[in-house]
Amino acid sequence: MTANPRGFASDNFSGAHPDVLAAVAAVNEGHVPAYGWDHYTAAALERLREQFGEEATPALVLNGTGANLLAMRVATRPHQAVICAETAHVNVDEAGASEAIAGVKLLTTPTPDGKLTPELAGRLAARIGEQHAAQPRVVSISQASELGTVYRPEEVRALADLAHERGMLLHVDGARLANAAAFLDASLSEITTDAGADLVSFGATKNGALLADALIVLRPELAEDLKYLHQQSAQVASKMRFLAAQIDALLSDELWLRNARHANEMAGRLAEALEGVDGVEITQPVESNAVFATLPRESIDRLREQLPGELPFYVWDESRGEVRLMCSWDTTSDDVDALAAALTEVAAATRA
Amino acid sequence: MTANPRGFASDNFSGAHPDVLAAVAAVNEGHVPAYGWDHYTAAALERLREQFGEEATPALVLNGTGANLLAMRVATRPHQAVICAETAHVNVDEAGASEAIAGVKLLTTPTPDGKLTPELAGRLAARIGEQHAAQPRVVSISQASELGTVYRPEEVRALADLAHERGMLLHVDGARLANAAAFLDASLSEITTDAGADLVSFGATKNGALLADALIVLRPELAEDLKYLHQQSAQVASKMRFLAAQIDALLSDELWLRNARHANEMAGRLAEALEGVDGVEITQPVESNAVFATLPRESIDRLREQLPGELPFYVWDESRGEVRLMCSWDTTSDDVDALAAALTEVAAATRA
Amino acid sequence: MTANPRGFASDNFSGAHPDVLAAVAAVNEGHVPAYGWDHYTAAALERLREQFGEEATPALVLNGTGANLLAMRVATRPHQAVICAETAHVNVDEAGASEAIAGVKLLTTPTPDGKLTPELAGRLAARIGEQHAAQPRVVSISQASELGTVYRPEEVRALADLAHERGMLLHVDGARLANAAAFLDASLSEITTDAGADLVSFGATKNGALLADALIVLRPELAEDLKYLHQQSAQVASKMRFLAAQIDALLSDELWLRNARHANEMAGRLAEALEGVDGVEITQPVESNAVFATLPRESIDRLREQLPGELPFYVWDESRGEVRLMCSWDTTSDDVDALAAALTEVAAATRA
Amino acid sequence: MTANPRGFASDNFSGAHPDVLAAVAAVNEGHVPAYGWDHYTAAALERLREQFGEEATPALVLNGTGANLLAMRVATRPHQAVICAETAHVNVDEAGASEAIAGVKLLTTPTPDGKLTPELAGRLAARIGEQHAAQPRVVSISQASELGTVYRPEEVRALADLAHERGMLLHVDGARLANAAAFLDASLSEITTDAGADLVSFGATKNGALLADALIVLRPELAEDLKYLHQQSAQVASKMRFLAAQIDALLSDELWLRNARHANEMAGRLAEALEGVDGVEITQPVESNAVFATLPRESIDRLREQLPGELPFYVWDESRGEVRLMCSWDTTSDDVDALAAALTEVAAATRA
Repeated sequence: MTANPRGFASDNFSGAHPDVLAAVAAVNEGHVPAYGWDHYTAAALERLREQFGEEATPALVLNGTGANLLAMRVATRPHQAVICAETAHVNVDEAGASEAIAGVKLLTTPTPDGKLTPELAGRLAARIGEQHAAQPRVVSISQASELGTVYRPEEVRALADLAHERGMLLHVDGARLANAAAFLDASLSEITTDAGADLVSFGATKNGALLADALIVLRPELAEDLKYLHQQSAQVASKMRFLAAQIDALLSDELWLRNARHANEMAGRLAEALEGVDGVEITQPVESNAVFATLPRESIDRLREQLPGELPFYVWDESRGEVRLMCSWDTTSDDVDALAAALTEVAAATRA
Repeated sequence: MTANPRGFASDNFSGAHPDVLAAVAAVNEGHVPAYGWDHYTAAALERLREQFGEEATPALVLNGTGANLLAMRVATRPHQAVICAETAHVNVDEAGASEAIAGVKLLTTPTPDGKLTPELAGRLAARIGEQHAAQPRVVSISQASELGTVYRPEEVRALADLAHERGMLLHVDGARLANAAAFLDASLSEITTDAGADLVSFGATKNGALLADALIVLRPELAEDLKYLHQQSAQVASKMRFLAAQIDALLSDELWLRNARHANEMAGRLAEALEGVDGVEITQPVESNAVFATLPRESIDRLREQLPGELPFYVWDESRGEVRLMCSWDTTSDDVDALAAALTEVAAATRA
Repeated sequence: MTANPRGFASDNFSGAHPDVLAAVAAVNEGHVPAYGWDHYTAAALERLREQFGEEATPALVLNGTGANLLAMRVATRPHQAVICAETAHVNVDEAGASEAIAGVKLLTTPTPDGKLTPELAGRLAARIGEQHAAQPRVVSISQASELGTVYRPEEVRALADLAHERGMLLHVDGARLANAAAFLDASLSEITTDAGADLVSFGATKNGALLADALIVLRPELAEDLKYLHQQSAQVASKMRFLAAQIDALLSDELWLRNARHANEMAGRLAEALEGVDGVEITQPVESNAVFATLPRESIDRLREQLPGELPFYVWDESRGEVRLMCSWDTTSDDVDALAAALTEVAAATRA
Repeated sequence: MTANPRGFASDNFSGAHPDVLAAVAAVNEGHVPAYGWDHYTAAALERLREQFGEEATPALVLNGTGANLLAMRVATRPHQAVICAETAHVNVDEAGASEAIAGVKLLTTPTPDGKLTPELAGRLAARIGEQHAAQPRVVSISQASELGTVYRPEEVRALADLAHERGMLLHVDGARLANAAAFLDASLSEITTDAGADLVSFGATKNGALLADALIVLRPELAEDLKYLHQQSAQVASKMRFLAAQIDALLSDELWLRNARHANEMAGRLAEALEGVDGVEITQPVESNAVFATLPRESIDRLREQLPGELPFYVWDESRGEVRLMCSWDTTSDDVDALAAALTEVAAATRA
């Protein structure tokens, strides 16, 4: 048995794709300028521009919180606010970085599926112009959302239009942008640049990197001070070539897309299997690499005991008995089938 | 000829030591908990505690600015100030992160050699208790200093004593702590924990890592909120195992020490060679992996042209014609001899 | 007709009580130390200690936002959060000061009446200890609330107990603390210090001052750095005597209480009058100096035209046709009767 | 004997000019809109525009630190820096507000007389464009300086030109702008707007107000977000009319100029008297309301005992025996003569 059994807790419980690791090793020769002034970084940035468009100014960063934080610091001033879903990663899982470091207020709203709509965002933007209110400046959406759902290109466009009409910007937290693109069978730019996005956090870590993400600034005027804020936010690696190699590898031969497609397929397979299990209900549309489902309460503990690994999955909502099952680039059909079998067994035992 | 010629610009122009790279590859199997809750990270933290003492609370971070920033955020509140040398990295090369993100004021002083003394630090602490003054809370020293000089253990102790007497803490920015320890033939704890330091930024990147550093908190009461500030500062890697592997590799079989010793030896060899060159004057004691020297003005441009690579070294002080020549873990005797030969030739040509 | 007709828009549309103005004039003689080191300030601080208890450390500040901001800066660090009602002034009317300057995240909840309960607050405190969550540190309540309702002493105590059990502090935003005390027939300390509060923003401006408020820190250990944060937050007046005189005047001969009682009585008189008007519904218990009521939509515009002054009252909730009618220390029975008469007339005309 | 004897410690030890106090009383009638939307504030802002020019956008604030902080928050983003003299109030007496709240780094330089020059400022601006350096954005000068010296209009212009050439702005900390204008026999705009300044902190408190200052933004594009930052910085008075009345009174019938001229004359009279005293040396040109002088060490203590009041003057530099003697709008010839006589006596006794 493996020392590190694969589970369904998170797509960042997995390691790096072998090609990414090989790419990192391949750039480890001799000396190159530090802080991103090397030819490897230049090449990776060029790759990103190929994906996101000529106007894009990309910056390699160290993690997703770093990308989101840098996006906010680039786009806002401290009297401004960011509109997002209550479930947004920036709101619930970044330990208050937006407020404490970017200095912005988050204006949040409950959503049924983790997705903002123009109507919801518009309501949060109602106090533009009021001296006593933090001023809405950014609408931030997660693509795919934290609930695994995916914005269609026209939904992104509608939010971008709303944002622009009211003097705001659209930020896409694309920690799982690859999964969304794979689901939509769209290019990365079709669901960002072409749909009106102004800033994109492009997630590579969950997609098979070791640790590397990027911020893509899509308006040249926003990119003017980017390099200073990048450095100040402690998101510049001195040996930047090692971030560059990862991004380059993922964008070569569509590795990013293959990884994302695979993870999505595994989620699809899992959903299909679960649909047949008595007492299990899938609670969100399965549109990326996540499956959300409610289980009979007692099943949760039993399942956890039966599966290998300390933390085989997360309970998303204790009160509803809802679990989150994440697939990764390295999840296998066998993994999925074993989980489905275990769950079937446990569910039957619970009913008995 | 290599695509990436080795030069003397910076110890972060070099890549990673092969053993570090191998260690990263070795942990890339299966799934482990994210955000540092995996067994690889636990092991690396244990290694760090072995080096810095039982009371140490280490945290793996993504870069040196991240370590310093986290140190300040852990140790200070926004009405407080940090005392440091004018040349300190936190003052000149972190794009204002201390002020903008930790919210602290830096109280700085010129020094002849990059090193604070109790007298200099004491003067900057004069306004403790005054309502109108940002309140000195941390004395921060760089070990080795940005000028390549090294604090003796008793010098660290004297600064720690001063700090503690006045209700302050001692922070050691150890981006090149390994080089200082190698020079002093001391353990890491002898020049930090045992000498009274309260927080240490432990640099691994310049010592042969890909990208990994650590903050070591040496007072348990300061560590209470560390995990939240670590996360909020965007210094937690989701796949933390890849930072852990690097730290673990460097602390195994004294790789850190071997790397540092080698770099120091190369600097010593270089200094020796330069001493014989007419018109060249070494301007700082060579105590770590840096050689600072003044060159005849015309020599600088000629030397730069003659050496391979875009940026073979940095001019430290244009007005004085002072250059900084950094050796790295991978600098070879041949590299040093070639530089010395080129400089000798250029200096002769300049005089002619 | 007066140049500045009295209306019901806000209790800070009124001026200063004549006794307060006289007190300001009375201290305008000769030179005294600046920044609060004068004997007038010492006397005012002593007065505040008489009200809030021996352990209280008061600081005079320039406005209510200043008091709240200073409270948060004293009580929190930037990885922490403040729990409050969605309607809280700190959340909706301070232009994001809490987030941008104190660096805290606000965790908010809808409430029916502007008041937190232990249950509501407890839910928002659920993630204490989680690395990814901003850490709840303060429960902040408004007394009287922004909806004019008042916490009973036992309700304050229950919230203080909850806060303390979970390692948090209780902050009372007492912009209208005087009105709450008057309603409850309680002393200022009975509803703050004695009920377990840790920090109190004590509002004087709305109670008849020109401009003066105070922060009362009720835990000595929180007061340690108060003077530095006070200064840094730009809340210290250089000629502090002029703030001191106002506070002193209000705390002399129970002027604060007389002013608050009067304003509350006017609100009571107004509520009574409105209850008889067809189509008008009072929407919140009238427990301080505010009356919230829904009016037939067309009545609102007509009433606004009929009453003197540009802005005779605020519409609180456009969608529900709800208005807020605030009474002040200088509101007269005639003012109230005139408003009631106008509303009766308008309501009748609307129905016709 | 008066309860509050006049001394020479500071121009904010004095009270308010009677006309200012009368003006405050005069606006205390009825209700007017809060937060600056009243006709009194409109009038005061118009007065300020008359002084500083049509393009000026003024904002009334609560104190000098508030004005400076708001200036920085309006003009900078957190990766930027402010260039100033080491002696600048923003650097030494605002408890780190610039760093902690505006998030900027201060780049400082020693000066002989408290005044920046283009050469000194230019040196501090050397790293514009460097990713690792906080980016200089504002040159801030104090007029009159903290050492009582005054920039000539052409000196202000030269600094404005330097700033603008390098993409920076010029801020004038005019806590004693009136004294500088009086000394130069120039209008307020001649030494600010007309000389190229972009932002001015206009001090009224030291000039005879109770508590009131203003920020004057001289570039319309900088004023766009002013109202939000004004509110968020807790510098808006809810009863703004009381700030407005003070500013209005000072700008009526040139009260500001009469007050400043008088204070300057008293400083001149004092300087003249001190020049004749053996052992006393005046250390800075007397150009405003301050006299800096070195005294025989023993004289300082004796003088302090002999003069009325707890703190009759400040020792500026203990090591040099230098004192600062400030005159105020209410300093009398008798006050000056008494100080000179006491000093003469003490100096003689010391020599004896």
